[in-house]
Amino acid sequence: MKIELAKNYGFCFGVKRAIKIAENSAGSKDSTSATIGELIHNSLEIDRLKDNFRVKTLKNINELTDEKRAIIRTHGITKGDLERLKTTGIEVIDATCPFVTKPQNIAEKMSNEGYEIVIFGDINHPEVRGVMSYSTKPVHVVLSQEELAGAKLPQKVAVISQTTKKIEEFMTIVTHLMQRVKEVRVFNTICNATLENQEAVRELASKADVMVIVGGKNSSNTKQLYLISKNLCKDSYLIESQEELNSSWFKNKKHCGVSAGASTPEWVIQNVIKELENIDKIYNS
Amino acid sequence: MKIELAKNYGFCFGVKRAIKIAENSAGSKDSTSATIGELIHNSLEIDRLKDNFRVKTLKNINELTDEKRAIIRTHGITKGDLERLKTTGIEVIDATCPFVTKPQNIAEKMSNEGYEIVIFGDINHPEVRGVMSYSTKPVHVVLSQEELAGAKLPQKVAVISQTTKKIEEFMTIVTHLMQRVKEVRVFNTICNATLENQEAVRELASKADVMVIVGGKNSSNTKQLYLISKNLCKDSYLIESQEELNSSWFKNKKHCGVSAGASTPEWVIQNVIKELENIDKIYNS
Repeated sequence: MKIELAKNYGFCFGVKRAIKIAENSAGSKDSTSATIGELIHNSLEIDRLKDNFRVKTLKNINELTDEKRAIIRTHGITKGDLERLKTTGIEVIDATCPFVTKPQNIAEKMSNEGYEIVIFGDINHPEVRGVMSYSTKPVHVVLSQEELAGAKLPQKVAVISQTTKKIEEFMTIVTHLMQRVKEVRVFNTICNATLENQEAVRELASKADVMVIVGGKNSSNTKQLYLISKNLCKDSYLIESQEELNSSWFKNKKHCGVSAGASTPEWVIQNVIKELENIDKIYNS
Repeated sequence: MKIELAKNYGFCFGVKRAIKIAENSAGSKDSTSATIGELIHNSLEIDRLKDNFRVKTLKNINELTDEKRAIIRTHGITKGDLERLKTTGIEVIDATCPFVTKPQNIAEKMSNEGYEIVIFGDINHPEVRGVMSYSTKPVHVVLSQEELAGAKLPQKVAVISQTTKKIEEFMTIVTHLMQRVKEVRVFNTICNATLENQEAVRELASKADVMVIVGGKNSSNTKQLYLISKNLCKDSYLIESQEELNSSWFKNKKHCGVSAGASTPEWVIQNVIKELENIDKIYNS
């Protein structure tokens, strides 16, 4: 069985940057850092940062006690939480991905200019909650054009996307809006790493006969990769680590494609590939 | 044969308004009005205005001689021509459709704010030539996304449509742009009359077995109606007046749909219907 990695996969610029920031923040025994929410959506990497660099993960700012440094996660936090943090006197280290800061700024600027905001994204995702909080006007968060059908819209809207969404679905939101309101200001805030990883998985899934996507189950961009893959290759599987691999998936398969989300560490991916090689040796030779 | 008119067809608000303006401008024997270019894209109506109201049609402003009043056509004229006209001292009567004035204003405002302009439309159509002339930045006039493929685009574009185009094609231009530039400001300038006439022809052509679309062959909105009709009913015909009807088109037909462009006078449509009834009596009874 041929095992092939997608042309683009895994860690993006924003995740690499955040991990470096977290590693550099490691203090002495008495001086700890804490991230507000998971720094990235990958529990294996979160564990590594805790074990090797003493970076704690708190659920929210209320859990802060004697930490010296608060690290803002890649997905950002709400404007209100950021302001509250700054008043506590704690050192605030911002690891928000710059591609997430952008939609935050757009939401703030456009709402100040009188536009209502439409966000294509998941209202429960921390990135979206952060971006929403910057708007001073009503915000419509939707995952499909159908969800907009009942919404009362003004004549001017600005539309942005969660950075990790599929461009095709963003397009349907935009074409729906342009039929309903006089002016639509479209900001394509889907990040390049997302687009490149999606394009590469599309290419690979259309020729492989089994696909393995590696990443956190709460990672939005990983889920999108899985959905694209599944659409083109019905035997597609989403796993967090090599332990979840099931040898029966690869019986009589000739070509196994592998990709990984933007928050999946390289060492996790390499472990998956090693295990795939083992399975192949045992079952397909 | 059942003869059925589309639910919406014919004269739109802007055309009715322009004809009233032209009729009201009729002066005495020594005092004439002239439109710069055809007031509307319908030669039969142009002839009627000339015969009954002494309204001349000039090719351009250079043809003006001793006319007392210059009437601006529904499609508008270029900013430069309007300024030149005003310096001549002639009385200028503006019959530009308000739905055309809007994209002119948008082109001017957006280009002044630093946006390059994309117009979905026909570069040879007078409306588009007028709208283009209001931009102070480069303008890209295209009829399809393919024509944009080679264009060098900046990071911010504003996109508008010729008022009489098909919304579906406008959408493909927008979705192409949003993949290429950071901000797309979408102004849906397709007029409601166009949208309603298109929707009605779609409904009728999907149940009729022969379709007659009445309108000027140089009328953009009439051409769109014909294309929509042809797509749903292969026996669709575009005519300017009842003389062009060919009885063989209706042999064994059960249901004839009729629609007309926004610049087609009601009396022309009624003549077509009368002739259709005659043909039906002779050939289908």
